[in-house]
Amino acid sequence: MWGGRFAEGPSAIMREINASIPFDKALWRQDIAASKAHVAMLGAQGIVSEEDAAAIANGLDAVAAEYEADGVPENLDLEDIHMATESRLAELIGPAAGRLHTARSRNDQVATDFRLWVRDACGQVDAGLRGLQAALVTRAGEHADSVMPGFTHLQAAQPVTLGHHLLAYYEMLRRDRSRFADARARMDECPLGSAALAGTGFPIDRDATAAALGFARPTANSLDAVSDRDFAIDYLQAAAQCALHLSRLAEELILWASQPFGFVRLPDSLSTGSSIMPQKKNPDAAELVRGHAGRIVGCLTSLMITMKGLPLAYSKDMQDDKPPVFEAHGLLALSIAAMTGMIAHSTFRTDRMRQAAELGYATATDLADWLVREADVPFREAHHITGAAVKLAESKGAALDALSLDELKAIDTRIDERVFAALSVDRSVASRNSYGGTAPARVREQVAAATKAIGLE
Amino acid sequence: MWGGRFAEGPSAIMREINASIPFDKALWRQDIAASKAHVAMLGAQGIVSEEDAAAIANGLDAVAAEYEADGVPENLDLEDIHMATESRLAELIGPAAGRLHTARSRNDQVATDFRLWVRDACGQVDAGLRGLQAALVTRAGEHADSVMPGFTHLQAAQPVTLGHHLLAYYEMLRRDRSRFADARARMDECPLGSAALAGTGFPIDRDATAAALGFARPTANSLDAVSDRDFAIDYLQAAAQCALHLSRLAEELILWASQPFGFVRLPDSLSTGSSIMPQKKNPDAAELVRGHAGRIVGCLTSLMITMKGLPLAYSKDMQDDKPPVFEAHGLLALSIAAMTGMIAHSTFRTDRMRQAAELGYATATDLADWLVREADVPFREAHHITGAAVKLAESKGAALDALSLDELKAIDTRIDERVFAALSVDRSVASRNSYGGTAPARVREQVAAATKAIGLE
Amino acid sequence: MWGGRFAEGPSAIMREINASIPFDKALWRQDIAASKAHVAMLGAQGIVSEEDAAAIANGLDAVAAEYEADGVPENLDLEDIHMATESRLAELIGPAAGRLHTARSRNDQVATDFRLWVRDACGQVDAGLRGLQAALVTRAGEHADSVMPGFTHLQAAQPVTLGHHLLAYYEMLRRDRSRFADARARMDECPLGSAALAGTGFPIDRDATAAALGFARPTANSLDAVSDRDFAIDYLQAAAQCALHLSRLAEELILWASQPFGFVRLPDSLSTGSSIMPQKKNPDAAELVRGHAGRIVGCLTSLMITMKGLPLAYSKDMQDDKPPVFEAHGLLALSIAAMTGMIAHSTFRTDRMRQAAELGYATATDLADWLVREADVPFREAHHITGAAVKLAESKGAALDALSLDELKAIDTRIDERVFAALSVDRSVASRNSYGGTAPARVREQVAAATKAIGLE
Amino acid sequence: MWGGRFAEGPSAIMREINASIPFDKALWRQDIAASKAHVAMLGAQGIVSEEDAAAIANGLDAVAAEYEADGVPENLDLEDIHMATESRLAELIGPAAGRLHTARSRNDQVATDFRLWVRDACGQVDAGLRGLQAALVTRAGEHADSVMPGFTHLQAAQPVTLGHHLLAYYEMLRRDRSRFADARARMDECPLGSAALAGTGFPIDRDATAAALGFARPTANSLDAVSDRDFAIDYLQAAAQCALHLSRLAEELILWASQPFGFVRLPDSLSTGSSIMPQKKNPDAAELVRGHAGRIVGCLTSLMITMKGLPLAYSKDMQDDKPPVFEAHGLLALSIAAMTGMIAHSTFRTDRMRQAAELGYATATDLADWLVREADVPFREAHHITGAAVKLAESKGAALDALSLDELKAIDTRIDERVFAALSVDRSVASRNSYGGTAPARVREQVAAATKAIGLE
Repeated sequence: MWGGRFAEGPSAIMREINASIPFDKALWRQDIAASKAHVAMLGAQGIVSEEDAAAIANGLDAVAAEYEADGVPENLDLEDIHMATESRLAELIGPAAGRLHTARSRNDQVATDFRLWVRDACGQVDAGLRGLQAALVTRAGEHADSVMPGFTHLQAAQPVTLGHHLLAYYEMLRRDRSRFADARARMDECPLGSAALAGTGFPIDRDATAAALGFARPTANSLDAVSDRDFAIDYLQAAAQCALHLSRLAEELILWASQPFGFVRLPDSLSTGSSIMPQKKNPDAAELVRGHAGRIVGCLTSLMITMKGLPLAYSKDMQDDKPPVFEAHGLLALSIAAMTGMIAHSTFRTDRMRQAAELGYATATDLADWLVREADVPFREAHHITGAAVKLAESKGAALDALSLDELKAIDTRIDERVFAALSVDRSVASRNSYGGTAPARVREQVAAATKAIGLE
Repeated sequence: MWGGRFAEGPSAIMREINASIPFDKALWRQDIAASKAHVAMLGAQGIVSEEDAAAIANGLDAVAAEYEADGVPENLDLEDIHMATESRLAELIGPAAGRLHTARSRNDQVATDFRLWVRDACGQVDAGLRGLQAALVTRAGEHADSVMPGFTHLQAAQPVTLGHHLLAYYEMLRRDRSRFADARARMDECPLGSAALAGTGFPIDRDATAAALGFARPTANSLDAVSDRDFAIDYLQAAAQCALHLSRLAEELILWASQPFGFVRLPDSLSTGSSIMPQKKNPDAAELVRGHAGRIVGCLTSLMITMKGLPLAYSKDMQDDKPPVFEAHGLLALSIAAMTGMIAHSTFRTDRMRQAAELGYATATDLADWLVREADVPFREAHHITGAAVKLAESKGAALDALSLDELKAIDTRIDERVFAALSVDRSVASRNSYGGTAPARVREQVAAATKAIGLE
Repeated sequence: MWGGRFAEGPSAIMREINASIPFDKALWRQDIAASKAHVAMLGAQGIVSEEDAAAIANGLDAVAAEYEADGVPENLDLEDIHMATESRLAELIGPAAGRLHTARSRNDQVATDFRLWVRDACGQVDAGLRGLQAALVTRAGEHADSVMPGFTHLQAAQPVTLGHHLLAYYEMLRRDRSRFADARARMDECPLGSAALAGTGFPIDRDATAAALGFARPTANSLDAVSDRDFAIDYLQAAAQCALHLSRLAEELILWASQPFGFVRLPDSLSTGSSIMPQKKNPDAAELVRGHAGRIVGCLTSLMITMKGLPLAYSKDMQDDKPPVFEAHGLLALSIAAMTGMIAHSTFRTDRMRQAAELGYATATDLADWLVREADVPFREAHHITGAAVKLAESKGAALDALSLDELKAIDTRIDERVFAALSVDRSVASRNSYGGTAPARVREQVAAATKAIGLE
Repeated sequence: MWGGRFAEGPSAIMREINASIPFDKALWRQDIAASKAHVAMLGAQGIVSEEDAAAIANGLDAVAAEYEADGVPENLDLEDIHMATESRLAELIGPAAGRLHTARSRNDQVATDFRLWVRDACGQVDAGLRGLQAALVTRAGEHADSVMPGFTHLQAAQPVTLGHHLLAYYEMLRRDRSRFADARARMDECPLGSAALAGTGFPIDRDATAAALGFARPTANSLDAVSDRDFAIDYLQAAAQCALHLSRLAEELILWASQPFGFVRLPDSLSTGSSIMPQKKNPDAAELVRGHAGRIVGCLTSLMITMKGLPLAYSKDMQDDKPPVFEAHGLLALSIAAMTGMIAHSTFRTDRMRQAAELGYATATDLADWLVREADVPFREAHHITGAAVKLAESKGAALDALSLDELKAIDTRIDERVFAALSVDRSVASRNSYGGTAPARVREQVAAATKAIGLE
């Protein structure tokens, strides 16, 4: 296939290390689409005859129909999806097939195919994330008033509402969607017609092929166009951030599903048992989502390393661009789906959550704030007074509002009975009504805004 | 500083592992600015008295003046820049200093400070990249007609123009700038007022502080606001892509400066000699730019790993967010500056480049294309004929256009004397005039467009 | 310093990007030691006169004394520690200083210095890890009988002893120490005398310098010796594995210190409070250990990327070898120290642990095993029966051994009253007495073996 | 399979995210071997009857025969290779199959299987590396006298011999083999019998199963044994270092095969052509080896991230241990094979190498050394004189030894006609005869030592 200059054929090792067909066959739909756009343009520009153009287009449809029906054959001698398709086309329509490769090269062809694939992947992830956002917003609406301990350092810090907590993830996913949108917009340029690296002398119409494939414009520099894998790294970077967010949510579900926390019952359909321990209900799906974050970051690392220090233009190292992208996309899509199921179908044990908030001295800040507001104590002093109250309560094994007024007054005489109102967890969350705060009223506002933003209504 | 609940003071190890002041003192300007915005709002809202607000604002100015003059003292007992500043403020203005911390927490304070710092860093990189683009475009304009071999697989592929090659990097940097712009836009939300994690009950005005600090809006969810380090990862991801581009250009300069290539003479001011080999002129700056790409990707990896699987809200692991960002930014800024110097001040040895293009059979594709165009040979057959011609020339150690017409006709009778015109490197580059192609006319168009796009005129 | 070939001096950017003195001054002791070994050998071989050799050696001692007293001055013009020392030496002893650099180059010099530093670092880590092992073994001995829930998937699985759990980390650290030992043995070859890259024609005695610096032998290939940074990567790989182990232990301490678990009280001296929440006692040290694992893995990634694809021999990219190693070593040493303090001084709340083991159905496997052993039920069937028992207990909110014999018999008639003995957590752990198992007797054996292995007695 | 506790079956998403059979079927041989060792021990200890033990062993042989003939069926409902095998065993031999799982769990089973696989992988890599060492040593022996430029900073530094250069890689691979050996020794402990996490009460004989599977000893702590994936990371770390070495050699082959260098002709069987440029002979195999280094480092990063911060004992995240190891091993094995072919079958163009050494002023150090030795000039001054000579020669476009004696004397009068002998490249390499140096005599010694060390004779 690359001709008579070679005295020997490629050896068995070469065939195996060189062939990309085992993975790049995933690009077959994109390869057919790009070839059809290319040949239509060649015909329109008179570079190939209308008859040849029609024969090639029909032939490509026939090849596509075969792939659809039977899959893409993995013939390592044909090396990649481009050669496989062109070879089959030649069998079907004869020598005219050879004209398809006029004014293009595998370098711009693969850059175009892969970009189309990644562009689609961005769209798929966006749809999945919107679904997960919808699940979060729905559950947040149900739990706008449910009180749980808010943690920092995994220590109970202040009471928050479960709805507020779930909406934190809505925000992360909102940023993730904007990353995929940015990546998609940045890759929206068509490399086809850049040829091997230098452009071509044939009178091609790159605007036409770009438009036919739904790109905003053709790429502006042919050397860059065939050397560039930014779009794949952009995808992987967005995927890595998203996977990190999912890993945090997964960590929380695993914690919450543990017996000591007991904040959630995960759906049976996304849990497993043990082959040896009959009582186990394991949060496998959440653990796998957390684990997959490692692999997705690994995929990103992989491609960044591969691209480092490569001179222009195309180098074969760049064939290692696809496995990490394909792997990361599969893992991410599955992670999003699993997480959507867990959020939509888990049972939040709000009684346990409330109890944990009450026993964790989570309203200590409210006591300090009360001293600032009602007794005009500087904050740093109020902090100190409250620390003494917590120490006393802890030594008695009691909640903060189980201390008597006398005990509190013994710590600071400015405390009076109005303080007890500040120490209830419901009062605490209701009071934190600054913009972005955890108060149920704020949560409901945010649920309404989010519902509208993702077009749920 | 966090009070009487602790029986023992922090041990020496704790002081060392816990203190962030050795690195977070870099945030002092941002910390002062955010505190001033906060106290102005507290005053305007009547949360602190006008007198206290004024005293605090003046005190902060005094602390800033001290920092500006003498640097920030590294007292590990004060742990971080926030405590250091507040402690000094208290020394200067007395107990009123304690009111500054009303309705905020270190969690939202550090999130705000660091975000301000990273936002500035995006702007600095953007300015640096624009300068490097300007250098590339200027040199591209000078070399719109200079012919060099275009490489794929580091094998001479087709002649290109040096101007076209340099503009490929202009395109990469264009995308990099768009990444920093996207990152900057995404982080343009103010966390201040999120307090520890849940918001606050004080009647704060978050729109006011956001506006005072130049943010587009306040963050919408307080739990997210204090748990989020996306903006730092966004910066590092953009930095990593940019560093990878610089590493490719560095690799090329290193190759080009080697004796076998001899395509470039790097400026003496960005090269070094050897302590032992007197003839050496080493491309150290380019090598360091290439090496720094490794460290910058390492910084990104570091922070992604750190964030993986952290439950909400703030965890102390997140204190490890700053060292990789500070390190990566320093390395990137220096890499951009060094690369700008190399591009602006190198001497391109265009004679050596042209010679390499001529001896590398780089116009073989032009012979094949001539056969397609002039003799209506299908491309795959033309490819085969040309392969035979190259093999013959190579066996004689001669350039392709040094073959006689008889020798060429012996390979294929359809070849005639018009073919020689197609085999000159100037003719070859001029012919590749498709949009984005290497033809000098196209390069000049792109130079003009780029000049305008970056506002050089 | 590298002479008259350069028309211009290095620019400001170059000085900044090129100079390594800000970080490689950490190598000053190693640099002095290697220079002294080198000049002693030059004198012994008659390559420099005895007088010059003595003058140089004395001069080096004087420089060292200055460094010890006042630190190493950071003069960027002198670029690195080697130049700084040689320059100061020349000031002190005059032109004879120039003879020190005979038969060596900065390439073999830095390779030797850095290797000496990393070799020392391996020793420091080993000592630290032995200390942490000692703490673990001591606490394991105290808690050989303390029952806690063993978790898989963070679900209570089977009761284990706390001593057994702590010894799991002893085993990890045992492997870590073997990794540092392997790395140290592999790097135990002296590059000095490899000169720039090709060796030297001077009649040097490399065995002598190797021996003087405590290396097992000189390196066998000069090109490899100056190109090799395996020893630094070996260190970082061992450090990364060790950091991952510490991150797992840190995660457990963070979980255990949370209110819902309540398994441990961390020492006040390694915890912090909150600037806003008076009740907080945060496991900062553990969080920082967990976070540092991310940075240490990032350091390893950094250097691996930097080394990828570098041609032989020395390239300046390799100057980026030191910052990640220095950073990782500092973080690891601090992490080990902090963890040793936490293990040695934490209070394990064994009452809470036992209670969690009892309420988590952790002895369900014991019921299944009882059915296999006493009633000859195939394991898969016993598993099914036990699942039904757990379901019943869970629906009643009761422990497994709170079910009545009638209730159990209703599930399977083969159950009789002897079963209750199998359901106590003490009985359960005592029964798991296979080699490596959790039975207190086994734990005591392992404590004894470990005590001996680390030379505690 | 994990029983009646679950009201719903696993959903489609769960089946897909949870099932590992698509990749862990690669472990089938190890799974069968470990099960046979386990059941033989159960029989010998009287834990199952001799009849059952025999039936199970025969059944396992039958399952193995089916796998060998037809492959392992991918039934996602059976989740993993362990369940697939046990399920098929039950079909073949009936209820006795249920007794195989006595006194073990999937946790220790998979730890054992995977360890066996990785142990084998270490052996395979070692054999491959020995083959590549043999190719390097053989070619080094052929080229002990062939002179080439030695590069630092990719600038001609000093002449070296090609044999010496190839042996530098021999040294790297020697260290790599020692890493795989260290890893293999460290993983040589058998987890089988650790059961789910706590050991077992059945009277098992762990020494027997360890011995039957060729392990040095059983693991000492059951919690560690099922939580540990160090052995997989050890493998990946060794693989990453090895891949980095191969990437450096690949980079050199790519450079050397470029027209400007022209130092090597790669074998046709490991090169490819271009679909569009008929003259191309691309070093694809070398580029893929270089690219694969990125993916292998990515695989290591992936698993390190996955393991970070996991509490004991087994978590499902750890199922993500196998894909990166399987992928890295496949890539590494192929890279070693391809590199062995390239080293064994390339043609080194020694004429081009010698010419490059002569034109690159590579003997400038020899001039400086001559001044030190013959004219007693301090090295730093000799360096300066030589710099002036190079500057003069460069300005004339001539080699160093093409300067006249008068020209040299004009630079420094201490130079006399004996100097010209020092300036030949053969004389230069012969003179560098220190241990480890590039002199042909030294190279022959090292070839002899290496030949013996790898048992080639």
